[in-house]
Amino acid sequence: MQYATKKLAEEKVFKDPVHKYIHVQDQVIWDLIATKEFQRLRRIKQLGTTYLVFHGAEHSRFSHSLGVYEIVRRMVDDAFSNRPLWDKRERLVTLCAGLLHDLGHGPFSHAFEHVFDLDHEEFTRAIIMGDTEVHEVLLRVAPDFPQKVSDVIAKTYGNKQVVSLISSQIDADRMDYLQRDAYFTGVSYGHFDMERILRVMRPLQDQIVIKSSGMHAIEDYIMSRYQMYWQVYFHPVSRSAEVILRKTLERAKDLYVEGYTFEFAPTHFYSFFEGDVQLADYIALDESIMLSYFQFWTTENDTILSDLSSRFLNRHLLKFVEVDPATDWEKLVELEKLFEEAGINPKYYLVMDSSSDLPYDFYRPGEEGERVPIYLQMPNKELRELSRSSDIVDAISGKRRTDHKLYYPKDLLDGSNPLHVKIVKSINR
Amino acid sequence: MQYATKKLAEEKVFKDPVHKYIHVQDQVIWDLIATKEFQRLRRIKQLGTTYLVFHGAEHSRFSHSLGVYEIVRRMVDDAFSNRPLWDKRERLVTLCAGLLHDLGHGPFSHAFEHVFDLDHEEFTRAIIMGDTEVHEVLLRVAPDFPQKVSDVIAKTYGNKQVVSLISSQIDADRMDYLQRDAYFTGVSYGHFDMERILRVMRPLQDQIVIKSSGMHAIEDYIMSRYQMYWQVYFHPVSRSAEVILRKTLERAKDLYVEGYTFEFAPTHFYSFFEGDVQLADYIALDESIMLSYFQFWTTENDTILSDLSSRFLNRHLLKFVEVDPATDWEKLVELEKLFEEAGINPKYYLVMDSSSDLPYDFYRPGEEGERVPIYLQMPNKELRELSRSSDIVDAISGKRRTDHKLYYPKDLLDGSNPLHVKIVKSINR
Amino acid sequence: MQYATKKLAEEKVFKDPVHKYIHVQDQVIWDLIATKEFQRLRRIKQLGTTYLVFHGAEHSRFSHSLGVYEIVRRMVDDAFSNRPLWDKRERLVTLCAGLLHDLGHGPFSHAFEHVFDLDHEEFTRAIIMGDTEVHEVLLRVAPDFPQKVSDVIAKTYGNKQVVSLISSQIDADRMDYLQRDAYFTGVSYGHFDMERILRVMRPLQDQIVIKSSGMHAIEDYIMSRYQMYWQVYFHPVSRSAEVILRKTLERAKDLYVEGYTFEFAPTHFYSFFEGDVQLADYIALDESIMLSYFQFWTTENDTILSDLSSRFLNRHLLKFVEVDPATDWEKLVELEKLFEEAGINPKYYLVMDSSSDLPYDFYRPGEEGERVPIYLQMPNKELRELSRSSDIVDAISGKRRTDHKLYYPKDLLDGSNPLHVKIVKSINR
Amino acid sequence: MQYATKKLAEEKVFKDPVHKYIHVQDQVIWDLIATKEFQRLRRIKQLGTTYLVFHGAEHSRFSHSLGVYEIVRRMVDDAFSNRPLWDKRERLVTLCAGLLHDLGHGPFSHAFEHVFDLDHEEFTRAIIMGDTEVHEVLLRVAPDFPQKVSDVIAKTYGNKQVVSLISSQIDADRMDYLQRDAYFTGVSYGHFDMERILRVMRPLQDQIVIKSSGMHAIEDYIMSRYQMYWQVYFHPVSRSAEVILRKTLERAKDLYVEGYTFEFAPTHFYSFFEGDVQLADYIALDESIMLSYFQFWTTENDTILSDLSSRFLNRHLLKFVEVDPATDWEKLVELEKLFEEAGINPKYYLVMDSSSDLPYDFYRPGEEGERVPIYLQMPNKELRELSRSSDIVDAISGKRRTDHKLYYPKDLLDGSNPLHVKIVKSINR
Repeated sequence: MQYATKKLAEEKVFKDPVHKYIHVQDQVIWDLIATKEFQRLRRIKQLGTTYLVFHGAEHSRFSHSLGVYEIVRRMVDDAFSNRPLWDKRERLVTLCAGLLHDLGHGPFSHAFEHVFDLDHEEFTRAIIMGDTEVHEVLLRVAPDFPQKVSDVIAKTYGNKQVVSLISSQIDADRMDYLQRDAYFTGVSYGHFDMERILRVMRPLQDQIVIKSSGMHAIEDYIMSRYQMYWQVYFHPVSRSAEVILRKTLERAKDLYVEGYTFEFAPTHFYSFFEGDVQLADYIALDESIMLSYFQFWTTENDTILSDLSSRFLNRHLLKFVEVDPATDWEKLVELEKLFEEAGINPKYYLVMDSSSDLPYDFYRPGEEGERVPIYLQMPNKELRELSRSSDIVDAISGKRRTDHKLYYPKDLLDGSNPLHVKIVKSINR
Repeated sequence: MQYATKKLAEEKVFKDPVHKYIHVQDQVIWDLIATKEFQRLRRIKQLGTTYLVFHGAEHSRFSHSLGVYEIVRRMVDDAFSNRPLWDKRERLVTLCAGLLHDLGHGPFSHAFEHVFDLDHEEFTRAIIMGDTEVHEVLLRVAPDFPQKVSDVIAKTYGNKQVVSLISSQIDADRMDYLQRDAYFTGVSYGHFDMERILRVMRPLQDQIVIKSSGMHAIEDYIMSRYQMYWQVYFHPVSRSAEVILRKTLERAKDLYVEGYTFEFAPTHFYSFFEGDVQLADYIALDESIMLSYFQFWTTENDTILSDLSSRFLNRHLLKFVEVDPATDWEKLVELEKLFEEAGINPKYYLVMDSSSDLPYDFYRPGEEGERVPIYLQMPNKELRELSRSSDIVDAISGKRRTDHKLYYPKDLLDGSNPLHVKIVKSINR
Repeated sequence: MQYATKKLAEEKVFKDPVHKYIHVQDQVIWDLIATKEFQRLRRIKQLGTTYLVFHGAEHSRFSHSLGVYEIVRRMVDDAFSNRPLWDKRERLVTLCAGLLHDLGHGPFSHAFEHVFDLDHEEFTRAIIMGDTEVHEVLLRVAPDFPQKVSDVIAKTYGNKQVVSLISSQIDADRMDYLQRDAYFTGVSYGHFDMERILRVMRPLQDQIVIKSSGMHAIEDYIMSRYQMYWQVYFHPVSRSAEVILRKTLERAKDLYVEGYTFEFAPTHFYSFFEGDVQLADYIALDESIMLSYFQFWTTENDTILSDLSSRFLNRHLLKFVEVDPATDWEKLVELEKLFEEAGINPKYYLVMDSSSDLPYDFYRPGEEGERVPIYLQMPNKELRELSRSSDIVDAISGKRRTDHKLYYPKDLLDGSNPLHVKIVKSINR
Repeated sequence: MQYATKKLAEEKVFKDPVHKYIHVQDQVIWDLIATKEFQRLRRIKQLGTTYLVFHGAEHSRFSHSLGVYEIVRRMVDDAFSNRPLWDKRERLVTLCAGLLHDLGHGPFSHAFEHVFDLDHEEFTRAIIMGDTEVHEVLLRVAPDFPQKVSDVIAKTYGNKQVVSLISSQIDADRMDYLQRDAYFTGVSYGHFDMERILRVMRPLQDQIVIKSSGMHAIEDYIMSRYQMYWQVYFHPVSRSAEVILRKTLERAKDLYVEGYTFEFAPTHFYSFFEGDVQLADYIALDESIMLSYFQFWTTENDTILSDLSSRFLNRHLLKFVEVDPATDWEKLVELEKLFEEAGINPKYYLVMDSSSDLPYDFYRPGEEGERVPIYLQMPNKELRELSRSSDIVDAISGKRRTDHKLYYPKDLLDGSNPLHVKIVKSINR
């Protein structure tokens, strides 16, 4: 029997708190899950530093990846299996792309990518195409199969329906993470009627549209996303932890570049500090390694590195105030000076962080970063862009909301020091 | 104002998926949570290796500890506050003991304690009484306060009601972990009506009893516990991972004792290998450090160490068969010989593991390990031991259930090798 | 001891699927629940005809009323008990008003009020002030107590905070029904974080405001309300059942007025048909009585009455098309004529029904039906109207959404009858 | 196309709070749901008088029947569709039997059957075979199809697998009602992992067995059932309401037999009083009719009838004490005398009610009321009766638990009347 169509002797299930069960029937999927690159995702948290605010958010990208796979499976095996415009031969590539789409995430992904200027999607494709157990499994399906899966991730795959299921404004990725992150944090947002959405998705030529009777379920999904972004993902306290994480890594890099002698040599980071990252280095770096270095660094002689790393580990975070970069420019410049004067290095201790989200976007041809909008299929088969039918979606459509916060170490500022008093005044002005 | 009674300016809450919110009003509790010894619990998983079977079980002892605190708080602030036989002055010591009861857990607790012959409860008390941030906070309450909290943990505290709330057959610890572990694994067991149980708990002289009208809620709780033990905690596959973990640490220790030169010196383990563990060593060891060593060890020259550590990290587990040590004795001896003959070291690769649980016990005076039974308070105020009223509890009361499994590396056994074939036959006989 | 402050010997609880438990400590509340006027609410469904679409929606106004009481109790006993601007002496009147606010609902409330031109709120007050068991209980509290409770219902009570808790854009009534109706229908809308909302409500002089940090919870609540209106309350199929119900009652009334001799004399309806309803008549009429008459009427000689009542009982509903009264005027006139020509009485069989909702409104002084907006209390204590802070709320604020549907008996139209074919064409044009 | 295999143009769904959605694809099922006999189930509560204790329990047999159908559908369409020993041609008869199994329930079923000596199962079959809309639909499938469905209900159908799915110790009926009744009452019992049970059911020759790995899910189900019986179904207060209901009907019958002239002639009950019930009479009697009569009877001249009916409607229930008929025999005789002496008719006001349940039974050949036990299929394919593998099930297996309560009107007993004081003493002795 061909490997591509080989079924397990008996269906295997994983107990999952979000989807009840994850069902695996294909040998290929089973083998992919058993690879060490996929198992590594157990050591990368799904929500980075968010667990320092929502203590339940300790779940990993492993569990999210299984969840995305399960949603994709329900699409292709249940919802689409008899739809005329869905090509059943795309089943396996869709399942694999769903399962593997987050393979390239590094430890504390966002902070990490930011400091070392990396792109996790690129590494996802590198793992799929490189000398890895994942690649080996995919290759057994067909010689061009790894490339196909990689193309779906890169959104260059020929069948746009497949791309859309994995990555669009309403895809399996988002549907899993909204529900999963809501479940683990315990917030009351993040609920929507996924079963209904799966029932109203319609594969058309080159796209997936939504039967118009399902509009309210989609509205609910978009509102969930909006609330999760501002209540959970952009929570200012978890961004404080991310700022510290970023600054710790920056400090370590700066020290390395300056030739500082570490008590404990950060060998795992050398190639990152040098900007020449090999796949094996990347895969070796997970959150247990990173947290170990943070612990080692708490006893380094460099006071900035030891302070920052111990702040992160022991959750002594930075405080914040809201700022508007457009109007607060002079204040920021003044604060930098005051910090230097006070001997608190502003490069690491005075940090502006901005969050920004576009909850939903209609089609703006030619513009940078254009997104494919969601189309409703009306009873007369006409397609209609979602925000034209929904008042609520229209209200937030295309409107980017941005939030800027200035982070600083309030605990280092001493009420008996006139310079510090001046800083505090300036910050709160 | 006295520190012991100092309240926060505004109540703080933690969002919790199990109890909705964790409420903190006391400055002492707030300060304890902020200590680095308590924050360290974020880096110790609540269920050790269980996440390798139930992928949702990635929650930490930090979240469980907050949960136990919250249940204790509801007991002392809501359920007991107007009960005549409850002494309100015990409130703070009870809250602190609830919060801190798991402070001394090491990484992958059970396997770890087993290999190095340690007791987490002893370390909980050592952290409370030692030179730690936790000790410092407790000391600010009163000079004898750390000792009081430690005594509650040790079950030697004078007020037996307090001891009973933290540690008995129906305590806040169990009530949290059953619900929390059920929530994160996603299993359907582990649900019981905690709100009702809190309403029917009655503080009497030296004990906590249950109003008889609440008997069915208690039955349900005991059944939940029974099912969680056999379905989740003793799952044979997660025990397989624990066996590997244990054997990896044993191998590392054996190598150290033999004078083996490690590529990467396991400095964090020296004092454990030598059997002379200092508090600081203990606290420094968390799961990120341990997982890092496992990663380092995958490239060690010693093939047993590298094989075992990579099995753990990449989840290549051992298979198992049921055995009965009473009757299978000869088979085990024979298998040891065959393994040696085949060059597979039985010390690390042929492991019998036993799980055993006593779901509920009535009072057996004088016997070792005696447990205080649960008493129902009948309408006529008479006390009646639970198993005398409940058929179901009676059925499982005092009956220890034990399960023995033999773990071995099926993947190393080769069908074309006659010796291996013999081994397989012997195992499955 | 005074009746007003008399507590039950032991707190009583009702198991409630939405709030877990309803807690009753006051003798007054316990006695009110035991009155026959309150018990009558068990025979009035909370959602009228909705159970014919969402079969789970069979819950009664009894369970909703207990729920509203419980939310009010949490407000006054937990959330507000230590707030300086909340007058604790208002506790009992607030609890009673919450419990009793729906007392005057008739069977299938909306349709019923519409046909007989009645107002349930007026009857709530009539029961509170009339010769009833409820009045008797309230009178035992104080001579002016019934009037006080009645004033809260009428929104004329002096303390505007109390009025606001029972009836405003964010009151206990709405908070219960959204959650309860979502629970019983099973829809995924209707969830919001009530515990958080209770924590951020702040009693100020003459009003209740929301601490600004709770804005997102309020947004979520308003979105829930919006979705529940359009997905559940205004569901076109349940409106079809309501149309039939209304037309059945109208037909019965018309027949009575014409002097028709009923097989089974509708004695319970006489005073309603005559427009001279006494309190006792009103209270006697519940849904079991009404459904019984519908069953009797299925065998009446009048074919319209028997057809309509049997349609309702057996769920043979009318079909519908969307219409716009502004532009479809001529079509409606034409259809009326065609129906008459075809011998299908348009008065009962061609019905336009409109639903309309204003999800949230800001303050529009002087305008009819003005609503008190929701105010956020900003960190600087300034009050800010909700829609000025929330993009989403602003998007739907003050925008009335209306939906018109034309209902007709598709099953009576016969494809072989040219006149009927003409009607169908006209309807779908 | 044949009617038996005719599919709806598009699958229809009902939103269900327990199973999320009920899916209907078959025209036959759709048509059966639309019959008036099936719609009548909306007017029969699933749990009779239980809503007077658990106010959420207002759900109807309509919603339960849809739930049973949905579980059966998942069995035959998902779980069994590829099992070799399942005959796919049994699909439709199984679906229909699942949907229709409760069709013959009367209003407040148990009390009603008891008073008039009726059997709902007999009426289910009578409706299926009689001159009804249901019969007409079934007849369109095949001439012998109504008989087949009726045989499944009667447990005489040839294929014992089909009978077992509808009616056995682990059937779709029980699986739905445990979950549904738990959901609507809000109790924490009643949860078990139905999805897992469906996955481990195995159709064998003439029976359905359980794969042994699913044993714990079955244990959990049996414990759920046990708890639901004693906590919900046999709740002494809802039995009090049932006693009153029964006695009201008995009184009405007794009066009728005696020739009493009713103010309001109970025409709907004549045939029941006379013991000659026709199908049409039976179908006409639903809970709205019955509750209407109860309301009419509150104003009858007979004080017993008016008292009892108003007790039921207004929930003025009887109190109870525990009795043991074996030892309290003399006390009961004495009490009867005392009641008569006091002018309180013991026939209606002194009622012993017994509840009894056998939570699970193994096979006892030849004994009356024998039940087919649940068999586990062990890894070696051997069958093993459940209680031989499960300690918990063994503990309650075959053990009938019975509870006797004596109900009486405490409110009629007056502390200043020596005879009444004597009664109270005797009752509480």
